[in-house]
Amino acid sequence: MESQFIAWLRKRLPSHPLLRLGPGDDAAVLHLAGAEECVLTVDLLTDHVDFELAQVDARRVGRKALAVNLSDLAAMASRPMAAVVALALPKKGGKALAVELYEGMLPLAERYELAIAGGDTNSWDGPLVLSITLVGRLTGRGPLRRAGARPGDRIVVTGSFGGSILCKQYEFEPRVNEALLLHERYEVHAGIDVSDGLSTDLCHLAKESACGAVLHTDAVPISDAAQKLAAKLGDGSTPLDHALNDGEDFELVLAVPPADAQRMLAEHPLDVDLTDVGEFVAEPGLWQQDANGAKTPLIPHGWEHEFD
Amino acid sequence: MESQFIAWLRKRLPSHPLLRLGPGDDAAVLHLAGAEECVLTVDLLTDHVDFELAQVDARRVGRKALAVNLSDLAAMASRPMAAVVALALPKKGGKALAVELYEGMLPLAERYELAIAGGDTNSWDGPLVLSITLVGRLTGRGPLRRAGARPGDRIVVTGSFGGSILCKQYEFEPRVNEALLLHERYEVHAGIDVSDGLSTDLCHLAKESACGAVLHTDAVPISDAAQKLAAKLGDGSTPLDHALNDGEDFELVLAVPPADAQRMLAEHPLDVDLTDVGEFVAEPGLWQQDANGAKTPLIPHGWEHEFD
Repeated sequence: MESQFIAWLRKRLPSHPLLRLGPGDDAAVLHLAGAEECVLTVDLLTDHVDFELAQVDARRVGRKALAVNLSDLAAMASRPMAAVVALALPKKGGKALAVELYEGMLPLAERYELAIAGGDTNSWDGPLVLSITLVGRLTGRGPLRRAGARPGDRIVVTGSFGGSILCKQYEFEPRVNEALLLHERYEVHAGIDVSDGLSTDLCHLAKESACGAVLHTDAVPISDAAQKLAAKLGDGSTPLDHALNDGEDFELVLAVPPADAQRMLAEHPLDVDLTDVGEFVAEPGLWQQDANGAKTPLIPHGWEHEFD
Repeated sequence: MESQFIAWLRKRLPSHPLLRLGPGDDAAVLHLAGAEECVLTVDLLTDHVDFELAQVDARRVGRKALAVNLSDLAAMASRPMAAVVALALPKKGGKALAVELYEGMLPLAERYELAIAGGDTNSWDGPLVLSITLVGRLTGRGPLRRAGARPGDRIVVTGSFGGSILCKQYEFEPRVNEALLLHERYEVHAGIDVSDGLSTDLCHLAKESACGAVLHTDAVPISDAAQKLAAKLGDGSTPLDHALNDGEDFELVLAVPPADAQRMLAEHPLDVDLTDVGEFVAEPGLWQQDANGAKTPLIPHGWEHEFD
């Protein structure tokens, strides 16, 4: 029952210096620690679209739901502060499921010093739905927006791409610390995290920045999982196709002025690889350029929610 | 499609002085206007539990989803600042539905000077789910908590109770302005909004305050809808039963010291009625007392999400 679960939650959730009032009241109260602005993001995940509850440990689902939200804060170069968690649980086995979801979230919350401030725990006759909202604070350098890329900026990415459905979709590390470090040490004009696919999210970034982008396909870091998935599917798709379009890589795509990009790559300041995969250009549009220099339009084939 | 809908939303949503960055980026940025603390609340609503989409204009569903969240801010005596809206839409007709949901929210957002800062718009093969998160700010008097009622305090309620399923569940006015005014002008020790039912939410308030409560049943303001519903159902339930247990009244239940309660009722500072319906007592528990003074235990029969 809801009240028993809330009693469990109040015991289980750790205290947090920013949390003045946690779960159990009509709302939570969060100390803002002198922040003048806060960052606010929500991501809702549903069974059969964002995960397959029947095929995966529910703790991994809880972890993923929190991690995709943390990735959005990373994309803004924002420090996590607090989360509220709304659940629509199936009635049968709902309590055990809710406990596992929270147990999946808690280690990640602790790692990023995030307060779980409260939530709303519902039951219904439908599949599992999780909606997590995060509040973050900005550093003195302000938000890292999608708008801001300038022609001539390099496209710099973290990590590698493709095939996240095989494993990474549940296990990725949101690039929170990486984004904060890069934003602090280098000039970064714009940024986005790759949830819908490298091609699609690069397209979003370029559009918001009112410019275009040329992706050097031979430079794109292709993950082992993309190789495996292409081989496994045997449907004619290449590892590069998967790297460009699969989505849920939750890596960063950054617009960096050439001198800073060069310095960034030389200094190698992160545990994860940084790669220069092309440049932003004045002409709106998206192109791919191969190793021979041949340039053709790049059509984004990443994820978009379809409804009419 | 998702991107077309977001383009519509960015045009449709009004600008707001607190909104530094609205929909269309990885997260929203909110100016905190000098607030040291913020209030954070989320409510998730699902089709067939919180509304029946097939039987009601979708604008009323959108309005309700926002109003129940505003009612939580009211219960904290908090001023609304910003909202993020997460939707899981059915694929067929999803765009028109999303537009109607927002059109239902927007007049209420405007009325309470609330910025709709962003959201997450998804589609799936399941029924409609809405999850709205609100950020509010506190007045100098701090939050109105559930904990804080003291033995001897009067139980003061706004409005009337019961039968909200007939209409009020969609049309209620969240008691935001009422809570702020009462919290400012009078000593109020604790408060809650009635979402689960007067008996159940009074029980929540008493438990959090580590005291008990005696409800004077002859004083409980019974709504016309409760009378109508009892007559319509003809199942032996009385209008009082509906007033005590129906839920979704979204009225305030307040713990007020006797002198302030007397002053409050004499001054009648709100457009809506205020009624003294009993007192908090030292002994934990919940009782009902009738016009003859007979006192019996009151078992809360309000709403609770059931899952095992």
